[in-house]
Amino acid sequence: MSCYKAILEYDGTGFHGYQLQRNARTVQGELEATLARLNSGSPVRVYGAGRTDSGVHARGQVISFDLDWSHGPGKLARALNAHLPRDVAVTDVLCASEGFRPRFSARRRRYEYNIYNAPFRSPMRERTSWHVWPELDFEAIQNGSEVLIGKHDFATFGTAPEPGGHTVRTVFKARWRAYGPMLIFEIEADAFLYKMVRSIVGTLRQVGSGEITGIDLSRRLDERQRHLSGPVAPPQGLCLVEVVY
Amino acid sequence: MSCYKAILEYDGTGFHGYQLQRNARTVQGELEATLARLNSGSPVRVYGAGRTDSGVHARGQVISFDLDWSHGPGKLARALNAHLPRDVAVTDVLCASEGFRPRFSARRRRYEYNIYNAPFRSPMRERTSWHVWPELDFEAIQNGSEVLIGKHDFATFGTAPEPGGHTVRTVFKARWRAYGPMLIFEIEADAFLYKMVRSIVGTLRQVGSGEITGIDLSRRLDERQRHLSGPVAPPQGLCLVEVVY
Repeated sequence: MSCYKAILEYDGTGFHGYQLQRNARTVQGELEATLARLNSGSPVRVYGAGRTDSGVHARGQVISFDLDWSHGPGKLARALNAHLPRDVAVTDVLCASEGFRPRFSARRRRYEYNIYNAPFRSPMRERTSWHVWPELDFEAIQNGSEVLIGKHDFATFGTAPEPGGHTVRTVFKARWRAYGPMLIFEIEADAFLYKMVRSIVGTLRQVGSGEITGIDLSRRLDERQRHLSGPVAPPQGLCLVEVVY
Repeated sequence: MSCYKAILEYDGTGFHGYQLQRNARTVQGELEATLARLNSGSPVRVYGAGRTDSGVHARGQVISFDLDWSHGPGKLARALNAHLPRDVAVTDVLCASEGFRPRFSARRRRYEYNIYNAPFRSPMRERTSWHVWPELDFEAIQNGSEVLIGKHDFATFGTAPEPGGHTVRTVFKARWRAYGPMLIFEIEADAFLYKMVRSIVGTLRQVGSGEITGIDLSRRLDERQRHLSGPVAPPQGLCLVEVVY
């Protein structure tokens, strides 16, 4: 029995999120079903780095699992991809030290959020972006993002994964890139609260359309009141890009 | 009654191609159903520039139709997008001269074909690219593409849209761009034969993997025999990008 670490990419559209649920199709559920097939039918528990919500994508989710496999990690990657459904795949499989748990060992997580800022909706970007119009003020959202950087109590922008858990997180990077009408928000932190990126993006959208100012956003952050967040941005714009160890 | 020209984007995954078919979901069928709703239930005929196959995408398909509409083309675009399904949208609507037919007036068409050239498949690129491995020789496919440029009989690479129609076409541009593992083939011609781009890409894939040489490709083009084409590349990598008038 050896411990493996794998990098995972999935299109979240067809999943009820990452985490296992009874009677719902989840990423973890598909992985465990596929690994059980490679394990002569015996169940295999999979541990993930982040519990992405329903509809959220990943190209750098990290998982670990223990498996009795004697053909090396390269063949394991190919066997997994041959059996996994089309909307999920491993992009790397490595040997890990015994008991490796991606969630507790992770030092940083990086997400991207895509806003398609154009007058008409785009069917080709429908599954991977949030269509927003009128035009957003790019400088305003860029400046508004800067106040997020550093160690803050982010209670306005999310809830702790465990009841009563603390809501202080450190954001290392929060910035926007523009490629024509595509606005891509990149945010990196030690860890994230539940719905944190989407709440931040929903609030920055308010800044970009002039509904609130960057100073309002800063004040809302300081107030640490969940109801002061802007509306949660829709899931399909979000992607878990990388987990750093 | 006025004639309108519209630019169309669609995700071809859920369509049995552009052209109207009985008992199958097509782009033209959805457009005509939506236009009939805006026309008090009376049928509206839609004319397209190119008949894309099942699974092929477009971000620059051009259509025309006659409609009694008194609120201007901007409001017509918004009304269409509000009623069309999520996988098809107009990105522009313009007034056209009476009797404008996008197919017969078009001077050039431009397509792109995406190859994802990486060891593992990519769920996020599953709907929009062809996953090919091992690594292709980029210089070989680039050089192989050059022989296509100019006026040739392309009978090897496709069939005429009408039985007995001629198979001479003029290719203005045929070149590859690489963005990491994504290889994007851009091809522009006065018009295309049925399955022409996908047959060319399937044959260039053979060149890139060393199965045949660029000289073989050139010879096959000269022979004008349909059976000398490489296998037809799958539809999801193909996108109709622009129609030039």
